[in-house]
Amino acid sequence: MKDFDLTLYLVTERSLSLGRPLDDVVEEAVKGGVTMVQLREKTCSSKEFYDQALRLKKCLKPYNVPLIINDRLDIALACDAEGLHIGQNDIPYHIARKILGKNKIIGLSVENIQDAIEANKLDIDYIGISPVFGTLTKTDTAQALGLSGVSDITQISKHPSVGIGGINKSNTQDIIRAGADGISVVSAIMSADNPRLAASELFEIIIKSKK
Amino acid sequence: MKDFDLTLYLVTERSLSLGRPLDDVVEEAVKGGVTMVQLREKTCSSKEFYDQALRLKKCLKPYNVPLIINDRLDIALACDAEGLHIGQNDIPYHIARKILGKNKIIGLSVENIQDAIEANKLDIDYIGISPVFGTLTKTDTAQALGLSGVSDITQISKHPSVGIGGINKSNTQDIIRAGADGISVVSAIMSADNPRLAASELFEIIIKSKK
Repeated sequence: MKDFDLTLYLVTERSLSLGRPLDDVVEEAVKGGVTMVQLREKTCSSKEFYDQALRLKKCLKPYNVPLIINDRLDIALACDAEGLHIGQNDIPYHIARKILGKNKIIGLSVENIQDAIEANKLDIDYIGISPVFGTLTKTDTAQALGLSGVSDITQISKHPSVGIGGINKSNTQDIIRAGADGISVVSAIMSADNPRLAASELFEIIIKSKK
Repeated sequence: MKDFDLTLYLVTERSLSLGRPLDDVVEEAVKGGVTMVQLREKTCSSKEFYDQALRLKKCLKPYNVPLIINDRLDIALACDAEGLHIGQNDIPYHIARKILGKNKIIGLSVENIQDAIEANKLDIDYIGISPVFGTLTKTDTAQALGLSGVSDITQISKHPSVGIGGINKSNTQDIIRAGADGISVVSAIMSADNPRLAASELFEIIIKSKK
């Protein structure tokens, strides 16, 4: 069945990898403790996206770390990824679930309490609480929810959750204590001088915060 | 089984519709003689693409005109379109066919003789010979093939074909006489003052050129 761990969820962004190959950064991050990887590509061709997804899948397989595709259901199907992450402006959840089947992981971004209430009606596998803080990584995000937003949403949500947006070492503990099951990061790992070290430090903070 | 007619194939481009709703322009064009419609969206969200595809499908159904989705296999699946059109930089054909099934129409853009030779090995339903002439509609196209390119490709191709790229009333006859089964247009209809009239004039030229 579905086997996934939201503790430390890396979302890729090629432009933030400081020129290093995406696969290398991701593999180092996984060695450091990343438990899930989401491939997000917004500008390349479908063939490039597909080829990149196949490479990442191969890279993650030995570590048993699931590959989740952002938005593009067709790429998820084509590379037989473990799952799909959709936002409020992507293909509607019920269509995605029908096409992907019940055994795949589907995550949904929620941007406010109302989204979280709606998400409770769906058999999604997790929610991404987005954005917790302001971020430069994505420019099309809703208003930052802050720690109180994370707390409000995790209290009413029936789904496991990760916070995303502006998360780094300095605020990870607060987010876990506000009720999130894990954190999702982009630049805190993608742009780290040492992605493996960055991942292991974040992982440690999360584990300690849960005690 | 698959029922389609390549005679006059409209490819949409919202930015060229002179501010008119896409559905209105397409419906007028179909009334004028358009036999197939391809929805191409490169900048909107997946949800907008999906919603637009559903609207177009509903609009085309009474006319029995097939809706083909450009590139996005997931949108084609999600709206149960009649088919998919892929280019050389999209998801590979054999993956698309496996996911869509044998009853859907799949078209492939070929940009040179070598692509056409490769396409002969595939059970695709048609080829789009692209671009015949220079065009301002797409900026990422290969070198223009000209009429001799159309002639060379149609002579060796085992698939039915449409020419695309820079086609209008003045050169339609030449393309049909060079061996294409139909023409594919964007601005010649999308930007016409009267899309229905533009379609009916093009349709007339094609039918006469085949006699």
